[in-house]
Formats: sequence, C-alpha cells, structure tokens
Amino acid sequence: MERIDAINKLRSVLGGQDISAMIIPSNDPHFGEYIPDYYKCREWLSGFTGSAGTLVITMDKAALWTDSRYFTQAARELEGSGIILMKMKVEGTPTIAQWLRESITEEDAIVAIDEDLYSYQEYTALLDELSPITATLIEDPFAEIWEDRPVLEFHAIENMDERYSGESIVSKHKRLCELINAPVPFVYIVTALDEIAWLCNIRGTDVEYNPLALSYSVVTKEKITLFIRQEMLSQDAMHSLTSQGVVLADYEEFTGYISRIEPKYVRIFSSNKITAKNYFAALENACQPSVFPPVLADPLPGGTLSALKSIKNTVEQEGFRKAYEEDGKAWRKLLDYIRTNITEKTSEEYAANPITEYDIACKLIEFRRESPDYMGESFEPIVAYGANAALPHYSACAENACIIDQKGFLLIDTGGHYSYGTTDTTRTIPVGPLTEDEKTDYTAVLKGMVDLAMAKFPKGTRGCQLDILARGPVFATGKMYMHGTGHGIGHRLCVHEGPQSIRMEENPIALVPGMVMSDEPAIYVDGKYGIRHENTIVVKQWKKESDIPYFEFETITKVPVDGSAIIWEMLSTQEKEWLSHHGFISQPF
Amino acid sequence: MERIDAINKLRSVLGGQDISAMIIPSNDPHFGEYIPDYYKCREWLSGFTGSAGTLVITMDKAALWTDSRYFTQAARELEGSGIILMKMKVEGTPTIAQWLRESITEEDAIVAIDEDLYSYQEYTALLDELSPITATLIEDPFAEIWEDRPVLEFHAIENMDERYSGESIVSKHKRLCELINAPVPFVYIVTALDEIAWLCNIRGTDVEYNPLALSYSVVTKEKITLFIRQEMLSQDAMHSLTSQGVVLADYEEFTGYISRIEPKYVRIFSSNKITAKNYFAALENACQPSVFPPVLADPLPGGTLSALKSIKNTVEQEGFRKAYEEDGKAWRKLLDYIRTNITEKTSEEYAANPITEYDIACKLIEFRRESPDYMGESFEPIVAYGANAALPHYSACAENACIIDQKGFLLIDTGGHYSYGTTDTTRTIPVGPLTEDEKTDYTAVLKGMVDLAMAKFPKGTRGCQLDILARGPVFATGKMYMHGTGHGIGHRLCVHEGPQSIRMEENPIALVPGMVMSDEPAIYVDGKYGIRHENTIVVKQWKKESDIPYFEFETITKVPVDGSAIIWEMLSTQEKEWLSHHGFISQPF
Repeated sequence: MERIDAINKLRSVLGGQDISAMIIPSNDPHFGEYIPDYYKCREWLSGFTGSAGTLVITMDKAALWTDSRYFTQAARELEGSGIILMKMKVEGTPTIAQWLRESITEEDAIVAIDEDLYSYQEYTALLDELSPITATLIEDPFAEIWEDRPVLEFHAIENMDERYSGESIVSKHKRLCELINAPVPFVYIVTALDEIAWLCNIRGTDVEYNPLALSYSVVTKEKITLFIRQEMLSQDAMHSLTSQGVVLADYEEFTGYISRIEPKYVRIFSSNKITAKNYFAALENACQPSVFPPVLADPLPGGTLSALKSIKNTVEQEGFRKAYEEDGKAWRKLLDYIRTNITEKTSEEYAANPITEYDIACKLIEFRRESPDYMGESFEPIVAYGANAALPHYSACAENACIIDQKGFLLIDTGGHYSYGTTDTTRTIPVGPLTEDEKTDYTAVLKGMVDLAMAKFPKGTRGCQLDILARGPVFATGKMYMHGTGHGIGHRLCVHEGPQSIRMEENPIALVPGMVMSDEPAIYVDGKYGIRHENTIVVKQWKKESDIPYFEFETITKVPVDGSAIIWEMLSTQEKEWLSHHGFISQPF
Repeated sequence: MERIDAINKLRSVLGGQDISAMIIPSNDPHFGEYIPDYYKCREWLSGFTGSAGTLVITMDKAALWTDSRYFTQAARELEGSGIILMKMKVEGTPTIAQWLRESITEEDAIVAIDEDLYSYQEYTALLDELSPITATLIEDPFAEIWEDRPVLEFHAIENMDERYSGESIVSKHKRLCELINAPVPFVYIVTALDEIAWLCNIRGTDVEYNPLALSYSVVTKEKITLFIRQEMLSQDAMHSLTSQGVVLADYEEFTGYISRIEPKYVRIFSSNKITAKNYFAALENACQPSVFPPVLADPLPGGTLSALKSIKNTVEQEGFRKAYEEDGKAWRKLLDYIRTNITEKTSEEYAANPITEYDIACKLIEFRRESPDYMGESFEPIVAYGANAALPHYSACAENACIIDQKGFLLIDTGGHYSYGTTDTTRTIPVGPLTEDEKTDYTAVLKGMVDLAMAKFPKGTRGCQLDILARGPVFATGKMYMHGTGHGIGHRLCVHEGPQSIRMEENPIALVPGMVMSDEPAIYVDGKYGIRHENTIVVKQWKKESDIPYFEFETITKVPVDGSAIIWEMLSTQEKEWLSHHGFISQPF
C-alpha cells in the first residue's frame, strides 16, 4: 500500500469519529529504546525508519518532527510522500502544538492521541500546549487499517540464574519495599521492561538488541505480580518465579488488573513513564484524595527500582569484567585482522581484496561467536570509515557499506551480550597515514577518556560535575561533541540505562559504587573524520578510611588503543602511565 | 542592659499584641552581605555577632539557628544567655517551624515577623512550614525597646565617573529596558544596593566594606526614580544623576511611592529578594489579575540588572587590571616584609621581635595606602597562621591575634577597593620549614587553581561544569573544601556578587565574556593548617573564528606564589609553564 493511501485510510477512520488530526509518536507502552515491529505505526505510515520522530496527520496535511541526527535520512525517506519534514531545535520550526493550532481551521477541533502510546505526563503537557484545541485519547486505530501489520511477537523467556544475577527475586523485592517505605499500603506499578527483567531475574528477546520480555508488574509489600506470556517461560524461569512467590498473570490482563486495585493502596508509578491508558486505569478504583493522596511520587529521583538496578552487585560486576575479557579477545582478533588485511597490505594487494565497513561488522560478530557465552549484539554495530564516522548515527548495511581506504581512521562502536554481562566499546583505528589534525584530535579525545577514568571524587558527586574532565581536552582543540560522555550500562540488559549519566546537563543522581558506565568523549569533523574512544568504567570505593567516602573509577575494557596515532607530548606523564598500566598502550612511548 | 532584660522587654511588647513568638533574622531591607548597625537587632538581643543567624523568641524560650562556620563562636557568645544554640544541617536539629510547633502550646498562637526584614518569598515559605500556626507581619518592635540603638547613618555619596564606569546611566537604563522587553508597560523595582549603585553610577559608604549608599529605585521605560538621601549626594553625583534624567526622591518615600504606582504597570521585582512590606505595598494599587498578571518574573535568571552588572565593559575590565597591578605592588612589599622580618630572621632575632597575624593585616593596609587610588578594604582581612587558617571565618583582631611562628603556613586573604576596581587575593605563605603533607596539599591546591585558569569552554558553559577542574586535584589528595571555587567580584562594588558562580551546585547562569570571578580552591586540615590560593579571572573570547564562540579565562592577579613549597613532580609541564608565563613563579623549576 502506498503511504498516501495508508494516511488517507487513517484520515477516514478519524473523520468517522469527528477527529481532525492525530499525533503518532515512536513509542510502545513500555517506552523502551527499541520497540516491537507491531508498534512501528509511525514508520509504516511515513516511511521514515529512524528511531526518533513524531508524525502528525491532519485532514489535508502531514508533518514529521525529528532531531538533527535524522535530518538527512528523514529528508530522503520522506521524499515523494508529501509529508513535511520539521527539523526540531532549528530556528523557525514550530512545535507540534503551534503547527496544529495554525493548520486546523475547524472550530471545536479534536486531536487524537493513542492512549497506549503517550505517557500520562506527556499527555497532560500536550493538553496545555494545544489549548484551546482539545485532545482526546483514542484506542489504537491501526488495527483496522494496517493489513499486513506484524503481530506482537512473544519469544522464549529465560531465567537469569542467581550465579549471574547475584541476588534472588525475594531479596530484590525486600530491598525495593524497604526503600519505598510508603506511609500507607502501596502498589508499585512497573511498566519498564528492563526494570521487570532485573527484578524478576528474567531475560527475553521480544525487542531487538535489548534482552527483554514483554511484561508488566505490580509490586506490593506482600507480593510481586508479573504479567507475562506464561507459556514462553522456560522451566527454570517458571520455577524461579513461582518458588519465590511471584504471582503470574497474563500480559493482557494488566490494565484490567490495575483498574481493580483496592482503594486502600496508594499508587506509585515506577519511573515517570506510564501510558495515559494505564495511568487512568490505575486510578479508577483509587481512594478519594481527601483520605490520602491516590498517587505518591516514587521516593528516589530517577525511580527506586531503576536506582537499585543501576548499582551492580559484586556478582554482576564480576560478570561485567568477564564479559569485557571475553569481548577483548574478539576485539584483538579484529585488530589483527584489520592490520593483516588492510594496514599491512600493499596498495596493489589491497586493491585486489578491499574490505568494507560491513565486512568489519560481520567479522567482529564472527569473532565474538567464538565465545560460547556470547548471546548477540547489544546494539546495532557502528562501523564507520572516514567522513562517515562524523555522522552520529551511521550504520552500514551490506548494500551501502563503504570500502575502507588505506588512510585515515576507521571508527568501530559495538558491543555484545554475554551470559554474564553486556559490553559497549569504541575504538578509532588508524588504517594508514594520518594528518596532523587527525593525530591531535585522536590524542585530545584519548586524553579526555583517561582524565575522566582517573578521577577521584567524594560521595554525592554528580555526573555533570565530572563531564568536563573528558570534554575539557576536546574543548581545548576548539571542538566539541554534542552527546553525553557517559551512560549507564545494563547487566545483560539495555546497553543504555539510567538514572545516572555523565553529561553537560544537570542530573541530580549522584554516582555511587557499583554503577557501570561508558566513558566516551569524541570529536567529529564534518565531511572529514570522526574520532571516539569508549571504555567502560565501574564506580568503586577509593579511600575507605576518610570521614566522607571517596570513589574512583575502575576501567574494565580490555581493548588496546593504537599508539601510532598519539602525539605523546600532548599527554602528561600520569596519563601515559595510566594508559600503559591498564594495558592500552605498550612502553616505551 | 542585660540580654535577658532586652528579651523580656520584647516579650512584653509582643504579649501586648497577643503574639506568642517572634523570628528575628540577620537581614536589612536590602538583603546585602553587610548590614547597617541599625538593623543588627538579632545581635543586640542575643549577643551573637556572626553574620548569619536567626533568633527565635517565645514567651519562655529562646533559640538561635546558625551554620557550622559559627558553631564555636556562637556557643561562646551565647553562654549564660539561656539562648539554645541550634546547629543547622546537623542531624536532630529541628527547623525553626518544627521547634515553634513543639514549643508553642497556646491555641491560635501567632508568630510575628518584621515585615521589613523578611523577603516576601521567605515569608510565604514560612507560612507553609509553620501551618497550622499563623504568622503575622508586624512593624519593627525594636523602636520602642532598644534605647541606645544606633541611628541609620547616611554618608556622602560620590559619582562613579564614566571614565571608571565606562557607561552612562542613560545607556544602562536603555539596555536594561531592552532586555526586560515586557509585553505591557512595566515598573522594575530595585532594592539591592549594588544594583542601584551600578545603574546610577554612584558609590557610598553606608555599610562596611561594600561601597554602597542606602537607596531604592523604580525603573520604567521613561525614567529612573532614585530614592536616596539627597543631601548626601556630591555635586558631581547630583549633576550626573539629574543631567541624565534620574528623578530624585527621598529614601523614606519609597514604600509609599510603590503603593501608588498606577495599575497599568506590571510589577517586576529585580532579584528575588524584596521585603514582604514592599512587596505588598507594590501590589496595593496593581491591576486585577484578570486584565494581565500584576507581577511578572524578572526575565533573566538571576535578575536582568544583576546579569548586566556582572558583565564588565572594557573600561571596567581595564580598571580591574589596574587595581590588581596596584594591589600587587602592596602585596609584593608585604611578601618582602614577611621574608625580611620572619622567614630570614634567626630564631633569636625573631623571638625578640615576633609578629602577629594582626600586624600583617595592618601592614598590608599600610602598603595599600601608598597608592593614591586606594579607597579601603573590600572585606574584613583574613590573616590566619597555622591551625587558625583551617577555621573558615577566622579573623584576627588586635587583642586575640596569634604570634606567627617560623614554620608552616600563613594564609592571607584580603582585598582592596581602588577608584577603578576591587581586588580579592589569597596567598598561603611558607614562613619556615614545611611537612611533606603541607607541601603536597599546597601543590594540589595550586594545581587546581591553575587547571581552572587554563580552561577553554564554549558558550553556554555553566560554572558548575568547570568546578571540578579546581576541585579535582584537591579530591585526588582525599581532601575537599566545602565552599565554592569562584564568586563574581563587583567593580568597586561588593566583593561577592552574582548571579554566576563556580561551585559544585547547579547554577543555570552561563559564563560569558566580561565576567570577573575568583578562582580559589583550598584544603583545610582541622587543627593543623589551611591552604587557599586565590586569583582573579576574567572570562574572555578565545576562538572567534569557530561557529560557536569559545571562551577562556584571563588571570589578572599580580602576586607571586612561593615556589619553595611546590612539589614540582606533581605539576605537568603545561601547569609549570603557565605559572612561569604568568609571572607567578620563576624558572628554573
């Protein structure tokens, strides 16, 4: 079906309900980074395949809002669709609400929002922005118009054995309830898939790259109720759950269940994101505000369950270390492969057997597969040669991959899931002669990565306080990178997780021992090259004897850095010694 | 009069108005750092002379809340008064509201607050906290009970010539109105003395150390009205003001005037602090909220006038540089004096003529006075020997000053006002043999000061992002300092000014060229020593050619650092070269 037909079908469904426009976001009801194909309505309707974008359809217009990462791609993919590209954060671009107020001329117009794809918070914010236009929550209208819609697939769910997770469900449940410590009986409503996976020690494959199972959970002091496709549970998982008192229910029963929760419970929503549909369902049978507030805020900033998950226990940390050991083996094989097959070849030899970015991505996966514990990639591999590395979301597929030339840099940012942990590593590899600028920037980024890794800081320090340690050497070249320096990494879970971060922006979450994060400064020179070095760091105790605890980072990545691209005079003795001591470069320098 | 008699007199005045308690803060109606003696009611009543403290009197109890800087001093000064010392931010210490709710047993109790010493914002916050106890605003009750109360003194007011200020009142007025850019006619109500002094190019001596004149101001697009003791204006000042269209009114007329402002003006309060009395006066004749909001927020975070003042023009910057040149001469004389009279003396010679901390403070003032442009100290000098330097607010007077021994460190933190600028400099001077710990910490603090001074950063960077550059080397010793790293410095104005800062805490104000700030990391070892190095830095353009402007700091302090206390291996080549290039140390190192 042509896109325009699909859009017109949607229009006629909306028209039948006296609705003038619809906003279609890129969400699923769990608000994860990757979403099941079943929920890719925006992609189906617009043809735009980027991960972030919001489509708005009126009776005679359509427009898609996306951010700078996707401007080029969206322009290409939207061509011929008649959908207007709205470049977010570019001067002159209207907000969705502004555009709707200008585009809709009917009086008493109504804008539709899918009740299960919009969070309650975003919905209420939108109501304000749209005023005086009314917004109404509707049920998924795609059921009747999307003929070959993918089904919502449920796959096998495994037990995350305690020898990997390091903590029983019972213990996690107990700690969670202790931290919530509500003054009245509570229900803690969890819709984020990674929080449920962590709490219940389960792993699935229902979305790409993130080992998650479609599920919901409701936690009270007495029990955990898990809403999940029960027939997909492995025997081990079923046994682990039921023997630890987890009550199982069907995935589809969740909304009905929360609408019947007794009024005596105060509702607490884990994390800020819950769909409008589920929010209102949870309040249907809630107590009157005069008795006690029907909803309490999650007591910890960033969410209590999310905070617990972010602090890895010693077993999880050990798993991470092992995963980086194992991943390091594959990386070292890849570095050898690149040297033998690209760098050390004569130009004639290489011309006979050139290698593409895609080949490299496949090769690394091939090397990773040699580990019996490898369970798949932790995100879509980025292998970007030369100027491609300056495109922040570049990803090469078999058809469009570029041939690597024998000069400049090849940037590789990939990671794997292993039974005991998740990795995320970036190396920028010289594949031939470099310019002075390339060397300077390579060294500046490396200096930044090392300076952050060497930091010592007292309890209470937030990521945004430390960010400049990695970013400062980059600033000193007069360049910058517009992304964060560090994100949390899930333990055989999502490679990007919160609530902590190391970014320029304020984030009130303090770094505490057990947090596992990336350390990834970068420099991108448009049309020329991109350089990023990324290690993984674990927050740990430094000085135990002082009054105030001091922390430091342990770097657990085991992939060498190419010393041939370093301008040694730009590094201090301390920085060089750190690199050598951690095995990233060899003496003498 | 004994304190208890004074307190009982206050109780009887309150009792006569059916009031059960009174909260007496350390403010004046302008909320400055130093306040006129006339407003030191809390000090008179309690005997506690610290700058920060709040006294609460009930019919049978009294308690004083102060912070950790003053615990020792307050305990000593409150002795025998019956006033309970409440240590703020110490576990178990109740808040004022908690204590009042426990201490007052009467039903329908009323707590009194002086309407002119509490800001409107603090008053409304207190109402919430005190509930169900009622708080009521009263007029100053001390008028009738404080017999030998100092009068509110008004002193001569000078013109700040344009050859020093660099900008006319007319121009400042114009720029202020352009930035406020309110959608309806506005009155901008200014009660902060330094903001008025800057706007109107006047300087006075009505409070200690800060060259301010008691005043208020009301700004509209058409005119500036200045409420001031007119007979105190110098001829020059009078001419400058009236020739530039400033309308003069009496200081005492302010509250009446704002209560009669026409409803057609929206009220905007410069900075958040305005007394409850003045806030309500300004709203007396305001328009109905149905027409437009009677009050608009100051459009710039931290206040528009404060933001304008914080960005020094080239004349002001030149004045600062000259002031640091001039101040550097006095400092170098002092360093010579210390060397000749302490460090280089034999122990016998020195025992015959020992020198105290107070002697040093006097000596530096004596050297400063040799400059014809010196106009007084910019804050109470801190000269602290040995363990005294670990006390954050130590100040030696003639009677209690300690004799400097021929070992360890002498910390000197002082500044002067010159006709063209204000200085603030700290040096920690070895006066004899040092321990290894002393040298390590001296070097770590120096490293921090230099690392911050060398920073390059793009437009939009906030102080809290850069703080770790100064604090990191201190953290690396396992030590810390609990104060900020950098504060704004007024141009022949308050030595501490906002709205920008370099601190651990988030502050949304970005650093922009023209801001003048301190750079002062430190280490304090209780009972042993205190080390602080403080330079002054000016934000300036670095790379003009790039798309995004980049900034850097210019260090303008001209006082050498003692190289004999440095452990050279702790400094990088770049740090040593910076120190040498800026004339702080001499090669070879």
